[in-house]
Parts: sequence; C-alpha cells; structure tokens
Amino acid sequence: MTSTADLATDFVAMLKEGKHEEAANAYNAEDIVSHENMPGPMAVCRGREAVKQKGEWWVANHEVHEFSTEGPYLNGEQFAVHFYFDVTVKETGERRKMHEIGLYTVKGDKIVEERFFY
Amino acid sequence: MTSTADLATDFVAMLKEGKHEEAANAYNAEDIVSHENMPGPMAVCRGREAVKQKGEWWVANHEVHEFSTEGPYLNGEQFAVHFYFDVTVKETGERRKMHEIGLYTVKGDKIVEERFFY
Repeated sequence: MTSTADLATDFVAMLKEGKHEEAANAYNAEDIVSHENMPGPMAVCRGREAVKQKGEWWVANHEVHEFSTEGPYLNGEQFAVHFYFDVTVKETGERRKMHEIGLYTVKGDKIVEERFFY
Repeated sequence: MTSTADLATDFVAMLKEGKHEEAANAYNAEDIVSHENMPGPMAVCRGREAVKQKGEWWVANHEVHEFSTEGPYLNGEQFAVHFYFDVTVKETGERRKMHEIGLYTVKGDKIVEERFFY
C-alpha cells in the first residue's frame, strides 16, 4: 500500500508537470467528493466522472498565463497543495490572479476528498 | 454572530502583525484541538492552555529571521493560512526555512481545531 506521503509526492509531481488529468486518473477514488468555496450546485461535486468534467470545464473556460504548484504539505492522511494562477476568464475577459489551497484526504491508495480554499 | 470569513480576516490580520498570542486569546475555543505533523505525544494538543504553552515553547526555542503570513483562504467553516518562516532552532543551531499550511475549523465564534501541514 502506498503511504499518504508517497502518494502526495507523486500526485503533486504530476501537477507540477501540468498533468492534471493523469494525476486524477491515477489517484482519484471512484467516489471522490470535491468541495469548492461557492454557493449553489457547484459547491459539491460527487464522483470521479463529475470531477473530471469540472476539470475539463475549467480548462475550456480559462486562458492560462501562469500556473504554479507548491507542495505537498503533509499531516496524517491529508495533504495540502498551494496553487497560484494568472488566468483570463474567457466568457467575461476578466483577468484573475489568485492563490488557492487544495486540501486532499487519502484513504487506502486513493484520494477520497478534495477541498479548495480561496 | 461573526461569520467564518470575518473571523478569518481578523485572525489573520493579527497574525500578519505578529500578534499570535492576541489572536489565540481572541479566537481559540476553550477546548481547541491542535494537530501537528509529527509522531508521538506532540502530535495532538488539547485545550487553549496547552496550545498557548506550545506557542510559548516555539517562541522560546526559535530565533526568527523572517516570518510571513498569507491568507486567509476560505471554504465554508474552515479557512487556510500560508506561513513561510526562516528560523534558527536554538538547541541545535539548525537553520530552517520552510513553508507551512495552517487549516482552521470554526464553530460559532471560535476556532475549535487547528491543523498544520508541512
């Protein structure tokens, strides 16, 4: 069984290379739950397929000027990742530079929850 | 009642001014639980007084060259804070530069849990 530290290190190494979809395919549990900091139906997203679609939506709707990833930061069966990105929201033209913290919870060899803070 | 966002903003503003003890006095719940990323008896610390003593131990045992605080990053009743510090551990003389993520959980008007990732 992979330790949380090993999983986190490998997962974040993939994110740093821009391989977000590969990282999710390798480590997201079938029943992963994803929490965003927003009201309404986008707040919680359930299941690997729904999380994948959210990722595809994000990629399709943002022009990325810069995206950097730092971490992982470890504690027990959870780990945190620090993201910084500079994007243009395609629909509105708004330029958005922001920091975000991702908090991941591991059970067995898979990520069962991701939660984003901003 | 204070919202989590308001509490987080005020708490982190105090941390940015170096007022760690004032921030803890204002917002730590009587029964706060503090989780460090280490094995053994220091892993979990229970109660405001024990957390205060841990803070005092840290201050007494580190020479701080730089300490910066970014955030808060919000999601529901939790918020995250990004710390960077450059310190010398007094006992060993070791110079340590590290990033750390603090995850705080709010209930009512108080912080009931803090959890540190590194």
